Amino acid sequence: MSPPRVVIVGAGFAGYQTARTLSRLARGAAEIVLINPTDYFLYVPLLPEVAAGVLEPRRVTVALPDTLPGVRLVLGEVNAVDLNARRVRYVDPEGNPGELDYNRLVLAAGSVNKLLPIPGATEHAHGFRGLPEALFLRDHVTRQIELADATDDLVDRAARCTFVVVGAGYTGTEVAAHGVLYTDELARRHPRLDGERPRWLLLDIAQRVLPELDPRMSETADRVLRGRGVDVRMGTSVTEVRKDGVVLTDGQTVPTRSLIWCVGVRPDPIVADLGLKTVKGRLLVDEYLTVPGHPDVFACGDAAAVPDSTRPGEFTPMTAQHAVRHGKLVAYNIAASYGQGTRRPYRHRELGFAVDLGGKDAAANPFDVNLSGPAAKLVTRGYHLLSMPGNRVRVAVDWLLDAVLPRQGVQLGLLPAHAVPLDNDAPELVRTAR
Amino acid sequence: MSPPRVVIVGAGFAGYQTARTLSRLARGAAEIVLINPTDYFLYVPLLPEVAAGVLEPRRVTVALPDTLPGVRLVLGEVNAVDLNARRVRYVDPEGNPGELDYNRLVLAAGSVNKLLPIPGATEHAHGFRGLPEALFLRDHVTRQIELADATDDLVDRAARCTFVVVGAGYTGTEVAAHGVLYTDELARRHPRLDGERPRWLLLDIAQRVLPELDPRMSETADRVLRGRGVDVRMGTSVTEVRKDGVVLTDGQTVPTRSLIWCVGVRPDPIVADLGLKTVKGRLLVDEYLTVPGHPDVFACGDAAAVPDSTRPGEFTPMTAQHAVRHGKLVAYNIAASYGQGTRRPYRHRELGFAVDLGGKDAAANPFDVNLSGPAAKLVTRGYHLLSMPGNRVRVAVDWLLDAVLPRQGVQLGLLPAHAVPLDNDAPELVRTAR
Repeated sequence: MSPPRVVIVGAGFAGYQTARTLSRLARGAAEIVLINPTDYFLYVPLLPEVAAGVLEPRRVTVALPDTLPGVRLVLGEVNAVDLNARRVRYVDPEGNPGELDYNRLVLAAGSVNKLLPIPGATEHAHGFRGLPEALFLRDHVTRQIELADATDDLVDRAARCTFVVVGAGYTGTEVAAHGVLYTDELARRHPRLDGERPRWLLLDIAQRVLPELDPRMSETADRVLRGRGVDVRMGTSVTEVRKDGVVLTDGQTVPTRSLIWCVGVRPDPIVADLGLKTVKGRLLVDEYLTVPGHPDVFACGDAAAVPDSTRPGEFTPMTAQHAVRHGKLVAYNIAASYGQGTRRPYRHRELGFAVDLGGKDAAANPFDVNLSGPAAKLVTRGYHLLSMPGNRVRVAVDWLLDAVLPRQGVQLGLLPAHAVPLDNDAPELVRTAR
Repeated sequence: MSPPRVVIVGAGFAGYQTARTLSRLARGAAEIVLINPTDYFLYVPLLPEVAAGVLEPRRVTVALPDTLPGVRLVLGEVNAVDLNARRVRYVDPEGNPGELDYNRLVLAAGSVNKLLPIPGATEHAHGFRGLPEALFLRDHVTRQIELADATDDLVDRAARCTFVVVGAGYTGTEVAAHGVLYTDELARRHPRLDGERPRWLLLDIAQRVLPELDPRMSETADRVLRGRGVDVRMGTSVTEVRKDGVVLTDGQTVPTRSLIWCVGVRPDPIVADLGLKTVKGRLLVDEYLTVPGHPDVFACGDAAAVPDSTRPGEFTPMTAQHAVRHGKLVAYNIAASYGQGTRRPYRHRELGFAVDLGGKDAAANPFDVNLSGPAAKLVTRGYHLLSMPGNRVRVAVDWLLDAVLPRQGVQLGLLPAHAVPLDNDAPELVRTAR
């Protein structure tokens, strides 16, 4: 009898961890296949540092073939799951269809940019979920400062020097914090800007930055951002996005060429197509992370609605910490399903959060101890290095170089805006046709 | 009276050096404007190391605003020169037209991929002049190994594991030498390839690799390449390129998805449009690097046919060494033209060549001393670090990391093939429309 085939859809935090843990547990007792559009696991929390030019893009990737021995990687985007036939269909990087039968299925498709019905957002806002989007933003921001330097039209210059971030969660806060440091440094190298300082706005309908985290972390982030001149406007969002500006909920129009959309995430749309029960787009699972009525189908990470044992009736939030622990548990429970060990329910304990604010600043609350400044910075960077499943030396070296050398301020111009649309089911891929 | 405006077209070796030298000489006595499609000087000799994943792409760029104080950068591609009106027309990165008047003009537009009338080459071959092309190749080669691993079709697998480089000059030789090391390392990480070793072919109609350099350097390169299993076929070229293979001049068909076009360079087409006298597409200049009949127009680098003082009746070859020295001389002669110093004719002496062959190998002949192995490697890397006008620490650190860590083997999938066509007047830019 051949070993059962476990097909894992998606190599984000949850899927990667499932594959990694299962490859250690199984030792040949299961055939593990991982389907993912890219050949790397992306360490998403460091994307803002890619956008600000601190880290090279490959630094935040971990090659799947190198770090998952015994796991077969199939490059492709899953577009259909046939639960009755136990088969997954996908499209490979050259556009050819493929399919895979499974004995156990793990749906860890992750999340994509959250869209809101705001006129013009889909056309003119730039998302921030994948590496192509972060690289587009790095090039775009750099180019805006250069074009501001080149123009003699002061209105145009001001618009190009204005950057608006919508959404003051983890991502938006870090993007604004790193972004303002980067554009300040660029502006100093462009003497024709004549001291005009690039302007960053950070908007959120919530009343404080980092609304989902501890209020003391919000205070730290707010203080650091305002200290750098970021225009932090809470209780404010956008009602319209135009090519040359945004209209705010308070009626004001802000001329800008840069609207960075960090409004949050929604589960990958593949989940909604399954015809199974979902909660806000997430696939409902039981405490063992199996889909009710389908004991061979597991879901985890952002794509799964996992009951939160600490808050009855609620579901675990869409964070990397949960995704990692979901992934490990799914691996254990799959091993149990074919006789290795016994299955367990999902339990968790918050370990705290870490927000890198660029420069020497950060906000962190490891094990409920609130930190700011260099202490938080140390904890944050240490946390990231420990959390990355590979490539740590290169990341640490880039941080070291950034501390001692001037930041590189060039745009490679690799990605046109239409290659990274906001309305994108696969932000990890570059869209090649308009 | 306002100082004369010097407009320099192109920031390759020649144009960059003109701007740099003139900014030191002029000290405000001239207004210096540099027009270039990118905001960086590209250190082209290290592109093969970008394609093989040794160096990050930004490492081989030097930001123009940072390293050329007092020089105004205009981002744009020059599309017309009006010699009578003394005006240059260009298109900016957003597609808008612009124009600049000049008192002195320096044409340093450089070169692009050389095309040959071989059926299918324009459609299926991949060029190697700009950073986008090098990054495309890195992604493409990586993806071919991954797709070879994924397929069970042995014919398809063999084609994907075959890489053909046409042109055994400096670039092609380095691309093949670095490429075979990279794909060997990738293949080791893909156990499903079952020991199938990627195959590299290096073709040239010449009778030896590096035909323009000293025969002892050819011997070194040939020995190293063959030692690594590269199929070196001299006196051979391609007669047809298809999507799935190439036909060689000996009639053999080689199935491959990868034809890398390193046939040489031709001057940027802008030069031919001027209506001035050219030699093989290069703008003819006198020994002072001025255009006959146009004392205010200078040309240098690959775009200029400069009389070779050591070989009467011939012109200096299209090398970086000449371009750098052209650029310096143009700066001196422009300064002389408005009264700083006296103009000088072009004289040069060969300093030798350095070819990096990857791993611990290189071939170099500094001051006519022939070196191979680690000694040549040291000279070659030292030469590059000294020749780069910036970013040396980052390049040295990447080399160090590559020596001690496994090479990163991921493809970011940033560039589709149609974004970097071989038939490209501006290989430094990504073509955004099909």
